[in-house]
Amino acid sequence: MSQNQQSYHVAVVGATGAVGQKMIQTLEAQNFPIDKISLLASERSAGKKVLFNGEEVEIKEALPEAFEGVDIALFSAGGSISKKLAPEAVKRGAVVVDNTSAYRMDPEVPLVVPEVNEEDIKEHNGIIANPNCSTIQMVAALEPIREAYGLKRVIVSTYQAVSGAGNAAADELKEQSQSFLNGDELNAEILPVKGDEKHYPIAFNALPQIDVFQDNGYTFEEMKMINETKKIMHLTELPVSATCVRLPFFTSHAESVYVEVEQEGASVGQIKELFQNAPGVVLEDDPETQTYPTPLSAEGKRDVFIGRIRQDLDQANGYHLWVVSDNLLKGAAWNSVQIAQSIIENNWLKK
Amino acid sequence: MSQNQQSYHVAVVGATGAVGQKMIQTLEAQNFPIDKISLLASERSAGKKVLFNGEEVEIKEALPEAFEGVDIALFSAGGSISKKLAPEAVKRGAVVVDNTSAYRMDPEVPLVVPEVNEEDIKEHNGIIANPNCSTIQMVAALEPIREAYGLKRVIVSTYQAVSGAGNAAADELKEQSQSFLNGDELNAEILPVKGDEKHYPIAFNALPQIDVFQDNGYTFEEMKMINETKKIMHLTELPVSATCVRLPFFTSHAESVYVEVEQEGASVGQIKELFQNAPGVVLEDDPETQTYPTPLSAEGKRDVFIGRIRQDLDQANGYHLWVVSDNLLKGAAWNSVQIAQSIIENNWLKK
Repeated sequence: MSQNQQSYHVAVVGATGAVGQKMIQTLEAQNFPIDKISLLASERSAGKKVLFNGEEVEIKEALPEAFEGVDIALFSAGGSISKKLAPEAVKRGAVVVDNTSAYRMDPEVPLVVPEVNEEDIKEHNGIIANPNCSTIQMVAALEPIREAYGLKRVIVSTYQAVSGAGNAAADELKEQSQSFLNGDELNAEILPVKGDEKHYPIAFNALPQIDVFQDNGYTFEEMKMINETKKIMHLTELPVSATCVRLPFFTSHAESVYVEVEQEGASVGQIKELFQNAPGVVLEDDPETQTYPTPLSAEGKRDVFIGRIRQDLDQANGYHLWVVSDNLLKGAAWNSVQIAQSIIENNWLKK
Repeated sequence: MSQNQQSYHVAVVGATGAVGQKMIQTLEAQNFPIDKISLLASERSAGKKVLFNGEEVEIKEALPEAFEGVDIALFSAGGSISKKLAPEAVKRGAVVVDNTSAYRMDPEVPLVVPEVNEEDIKEHNGIIANPNCSTIQMVAALEPIREAYGLKRVIVSTYQAVSGAGNAAADELKEQSQSFLNGDELNAEILPVKGDEKHYPIAFNALPQIDVFQDNGYTFEEMKMINETKKIMHLTELPVSATCVRLPFFTSHAESVYVEVEQEGASVGQIKELFQNAPGVVLEDDPETQTYPTPLSAEGKRDVFIGRIRQDLDQANGYHLWVVSDNLLKGAAWNSVQIAQSIIENNWLKK
């Protein structure tokens, strides 16, 4: 029996969350070779039933013993759950693809965007980390440029969707928007950060805070983009800087990326050509016809869309890009499933 | 009789527009010394009545003869109207403060943000240009830094409100938002640019196009920020780069500004101190208490609010700022009225 005809016991942890739901849909859509699926969530969700490939599957509580016999476990239930349960899954023989920040900067854990560093997967010790959503789409866009011209520095300002903060944040945007249109007061309880002290309305607003503040004045989201980019690209010395902003749309993150390259002289046409030939990215860039990606146009798609490519007017080795991708798909569920597919296709399940 | 006790015949051209309305309110709120006000607009609006200082004023059609006897004319009715009528007003002895792009880059016309280059007003030949909204708030934030440490380069990504595209764009956002919440299709007819070929929904979306595309791939809005900044600050060689994005909120533009200074070594604390002592800017920056400005918090206020000040983690002379201001006030009406006030206070009405 060839590798490709095998099938696997797959677990999804956080099956009722915004990303977990997309993971389930993506596994279905990919015809991922599954002989058994375990959908795991908190005690509160246990007992609910979900359709998978046309059959009802009961959601079970995410307990250590739920990972018995699991080959691949996709985690997206928050960092503390991953810290507690990923080792339990690994102990029982599963390979974990973890979509939280729990293990991303652990030097023993590969942090993978398949278009950039697929080979890193094989170094895993049971856990492979899925990067932060805003990082994934940026490095997918940077990789073709790095390959052709080398990278000298990156400055990014983000435009991020509320679904990155979960279903409750999306509900909050919906409710606040309706209140605003009705002329009622806005009730803010979730954003910018559920567990933080203050909450601000997101409807018809912009919040320059995603995740909690660090001692250096950057938010954790900004530090994730900075540190994860260096790790994924194996460019530990690359200057990367980020300002992350939450905005009132539901899906897809957009990014205004400034990049300086090592080897100057490339025309905008040559940069565009790179994207036409690179995996996982789609060029949508034609000022003549007002063609550029937007959060709405990228929603529900797996690719990273790139437009507004311009040469800096002063810096010969500087370029500006506008990078958009569905934060729940390439930014989370699809990248996780890509990693899982790579694991089975390359026979990297067991070390 | 002292200069301050004089009063003036003031005209507002574009009196029914988003900015024109704010100009009228700002003149009232400032107790601007007015003995007669002429509210001018298109033929379509002529005959409508508007309250000014408690009295009904009839809107008149903006025709050349309407400027007879006018001392100061505030224009905000689009570039083509300014091109046609500003010279007519000047010919009749008025000083024009023009809030369109018509004369901004004319070397004979001062382009003024009073906190930055008030003295330029006195060089006028009848017309003083009010800069683009997104430029004004940025240079107000940059000026204290320039003064203390010199500027080496600026990279900005903007988060701009729909009211910058007029009342019709604000109505479009409102209607589309309600349609979206109802599950109906979105009807896009105004944004990103009313006169351009294609229109995209702005509700729950982000459009990386403000104003029309130029041959170099930048939009006109981006080139305005680049060129106007150099002119206002008298730094013709300053490298400035901009990416301008329209977002689904009604009022206030926000900007993620990266600035490199000539003289390195300033701490974030020193940069904050600059803003505490500078005119027209307000520091709202405390990560500890999640304090930072947002479009909603800046709405209806005249100042430029600055937060999220961080040192770049790699570039010793690099800083990141988040700059927010009401685009209709400091970005338009208030800056225009400030110029008008400066003209009368400094006796710069007649050359």
